[in-house]
Amino acid sequence: MTSYTLSQITAELGGQWQGEDIAVEAVRPLAQAEGGHISFLANPKYKSEVHESRAGAVIVSEKAAGEFTGRNLIITADPYLYFAKVARLFSPIVKAAGGVHPTAVVEPSAVVPASCEIGAHAYIGARTVLGEGCRILAGAVVEHDCKLGDEVVLHPNAVVYYGCTLGQRVEIHSGAVIGADGFGLAFAGASWFKIPQTGGVTLGDDVEIGSNSNIDRGAMSDTLIGKGTKIDNQVQIGHNCKIGEHTVIAAQAGISGSTTIGSYCIIGGGVGTVGHIEIADKTNIGGGTCITHSIKESGQHIASLYPMQTHKEWAKNAVHIRHLSEMNKRIKQLEKQLGAAGGQEQA
Amino acid sequence: MTSYTLSQITAELGGQWQGEDIAVEAVRPLAQAEGGHISFLANPKYKSEVHESRAGAVIVSEKAAGEFTGRNLIITADPYLYFAKVARLFSPIVKAAGGVHPTAVVEPSAVVPASCEIGAHAYIGARTVLGEGCRILAGAVVEHDCKLGDEVVLHPNAVVYYGCTLGQRVEIHSGAVIGADGFGLAFAGASWFKIPQTGGVTLGDDVEIGSNSNIDRGAMSDTLIGKGTKIDNQVQIGHNCKIGEHTVIAAQAGISGSTTIGSYCIIGGGVGTVGHIEIADKTNIGGGTCITHSIKESGQHIASLYPMQTHKEWAKNAVHIRHLSEMNKRIKQLEKQLGAAGGQEQA
Amino acid sequence: MTSYTLSQITAELGGQWQGEDIAVEAVRPLAQAEGGHISFLANPKYKSEVHESRAGAVIVSEKAAGEFTGRNLIITADPYLYFAKVARLFSPIVKAAGGVHPTAVVEPSAVVPASCEIGAHAYIGARTVLGEGCRILAGAVVEHDCKLGDEVVLHPNAVVYYGCTLGQRVEIHSGAVIGADGFGLAFAGASWFKIPQTGGVTLGDDVEIGSNSNIDRGAMSDTLIGKGTKIDNQVQIGHNCKIGEHTVIAAQAGISGSTTIGSYCIIGGGVGTVGHIEIADKTNIGGGTCITHSIKESGQHIASLYPMQTHKEWAKNAVHIRHLSEMNKRIKQLEKQLGAAGGQEQA
Repeated sequence: MTSYTLSQITAELGGQWQGEDIAVEAVRPLAQAEGGHISFLANPKYKSEVHESRAGAVIVSEKAAGEFTGRNLIITADPYLYFAKVARLFSPIVKAAGGVHPTAVVEPSAVVPASCEIGAHAYIGARTVLGEGCRILAGAVVEHDCKLGDEVVLHPNAVVYYGCTLGQRVEIHSGAVIGADGFGLAFAGASWFKIPQTGGVTLGDDVEIGSNSNIDRGAMSDTLIGKGTKIDNQVQIGHNCKIGEHTVIAAQAGISGSTTIGSYCIIGGGVGTVGHIEIADKTNIGGGTCITHSIKESGQHIASLYPMQTHKEWAKNAVHIRHLSEMNKRIKQLEKQLGAAGGQEQA
Repeated sequence: MTSYTLSQITAELGGQWQGEDIAVEAVRPLAQAEGGHISFLANPKYKSEVHESRAGAVIVSEKAAGEFTGRNLIITADPYLYFAKVARLFSPIVKAAGGVHPTAVVEPSAVVPASCEIGAHAYIGARTVLGEGCRILAGAVVEHDCKLGDEVVLHPNAVVYYGCTLGQRVEIHSGAVIGADGFGLAFAGASWFKIPQTGGVTLGDDVEIGSNSNIDRGAMSDTLIGKGTKIDNQVQIGHNCKIGEHTVIAAQAGISGSTTIGSYCIIGGGVGTVGHIEIADKTNIGGGTCITHSIKESGQHIASLYPMQTHKEWAKNAVHIRHLSEMNKRIKQLEKQLGAAGGQEQA
Repeated sequence: MTSYTLSQITAELGGQWQGEDIAVEAVRPLAQAEGGHISFLANPKYKSEVHESRAGAVIVSEKAAGEFTGRNLIITADPYLYFAKVARLFSPIVKAAGGVHPTAVVEPSAVVPASCEIGAHAYIGARTVLGEGCRILAGAVVEHDCKLGDEVVLHPNAVVYYGCTLGQRVEIHSGAVIGADGFGLAFAGASWFKIPQTGGVTLGDDVEIGSNSNIDRGAMSDTLIGKGTKIDNQVQIGHNCKIGEHTVIAAQAGISGSTTIGSYCIIGGGVGTVGHIEIADKTNIGGGTCITHSIKESGQHIASLYPMQTHKEWAKNAVHIRHLSEMNKRIKQLEKQLGAAGGQEQA
């Protein structure tokens, strides 16, 4: 196991160390850390945990540092981000072990640089072009006529349909499917006629797509995911969507077709949207919210969750949801009567 | 790139062309179309876009045609359906390139006609019988004792468990799983005893199953999906469900076990249902709705969405959801008092 | 087809038979059973179906037995559980056909006992150790440094990322992904920095994971699923979750990261939770509920569903959800005024 001293870490990542220049070999949460570990205090409300922690060293903010004299510290403006970078130091991104596994199939017209790692039973279709250092792991499939940037990673059994474009360092987790047909149907009197989905998918640089997520191909032009956008597991992005840059979409969200989402948005888990709407930059949508119309002002925090109760309380209250309009009328009537009774007009 | 003149298109698909008999080589939306493209006006409210569009030709309804004299038009009763058919003309359904890839595994007792295309690393189990012209693409798996109709397509890494039946022209997208075990458990005092799922799945002709969707096998008889029904991505159909014909189910819907859904229903994205209920023909269920009991009258439009707000407004209002019953009682009390105060009885 | 007489069944599974000791060859629901089938009455309200059923024999409770004199019966304390066991008698768990398919790839440092069945195009990574009698079916992938107990089953195209631990008799359905990266990101001013996910996943004995479900690997320590817990399809379990023993989670539920769920809980379909909360043992959460805070008292039944209506009724009522706070204020005002008008103070 690799270890780093505090001075080696700060030489690499910035920040200032204080106390003893000990060596640490892993990052651990405060409660689980031992002497050989480095931990971090991201939220000041957990200060007491630092005092109780056996961590060999702790990453803290300048503001908090004064409280922990006697501890070995790394002091930095953003302890959470610094923790992430230290963790990456201990777990560097795996580089491609160049070479095509004997059981992989690469069509003759595909372009696969020698720096790429093509795993067991992987498949690279005709005319598909890979950048340098890609890792296409066991059982992953890239159909024909795709273009992948450098250092793209496809985890086992991920699938990219034909004609898709992936930027640099795109990472696609297992079971994710990029470019399956959008759900386009025209009713033909007695049955549904499938609308050919002739666009593709374009994923910008540094996009990550979670396991078992779907990005559907566009009907006539590409579905677009902007650079740096991170998508969690089991997310569905319908055809013709345009997602901006550095937006984060949590698990099980579903974005209906032709929706435009801005940059730096945070979309919570299980969010659903209707189609053909626009969501402004920096919108923060709470988990489970159903978005029924466009959000035009940027930076808003949106929610729509039905509050949880015991089943008994829920049953007692929820029944009135069906009569809110009537309830409102009854209040109006009371206001009217009372205005009369009390000799005062109500608005 | 293939191109068609307007007269060639109408010869193939019906409708009438007018203006100049130009050749077009692709379908594009009005805003993106250029001179070599054909576009369409499905919704009269976008008329102005036709005037602004550079499309070489436009598909319009008879009613709208009069407004676009001087444009090259194809006139038809249903421009949206016509557009779909023109798009198909430019993107014909891919036919099987007959032959079994050297890396595919076909068990000796399976029946695979020479017209079928079996892709790299695909697997066809024992006693499974394929119709003519099937395409079983890279990494797709059909376990033993299945029966597939003609021209069935399994996209890469799709899976069909043993003992399932797929009709003609069924299309299964990547990551979809047909026939995994239904979720049947009997509580055995301290642990759960798994109920063997001995039924299969039967998919009717022309059924399409989206990527990463699941159709579970039945407990004692088959889960059934009627002909022409189209299912989007990440949809879950529980064991013993019976879905009718030409019904459309959008992404991330979840249909609990033993639910019966009629024909020509439209089920929105993210809809959930309890199990053991019936939903009548032609029911239209809005996205995100939770269906808690049977819908017996056909043709209804059902909804149950919690309205979205800013988080601040939501927090202010949602808290009262938990007290609706009390609120109702307070109104009743007011009505009672006011009846007395004003000398009038309230209903 | 194997058949069993009633006396053979009771010799194997307990209970008492009465009537004629006929042979039956399958289990069927009451309405579909014929003379060669055995059926069951789990819920007394379906008694009349027993009278109408053509089943050769019926499994009933002691209490119900008296009503069916003249029928061939098996009498037992829990007919539903007994039915499950009879069904298992007719469909025994498939044992591994030992051997590695010639197209499978097993890395030289992996340990695969001869009793294991490794299917076509399956992949077993370096240093991974399998127990006895495992079945790793077509296209399934187990990455490096995993440890699997005895009789683990991976259905076709299931994926287990590196460094995961699976107990005895764990069953993973097709498309499920164990150990993909948790969704951990730190904002770095203009883009997101990915937090390495260095933990793994530990699944206890007899855990079953449904098709296309995800159990994410932990950020610094393992995500844990306790023994006997059963998870349906398309379920998402975020990183660092700890799920207890013998808990049941229905399809499309989403458990956010760092959530702790107790034992013997029943989590309905489509349930969502926020992260970093605790749910006590034996909690029963109704389908579609959003869990927004910890549930500390065990044994509660929780719900939060927006009631369904026709779209027209919904639209009329839902609009008032946005004004509940105002509605409450109006009632308060009326109470105040009425207190004055009627000469009585309201609480």
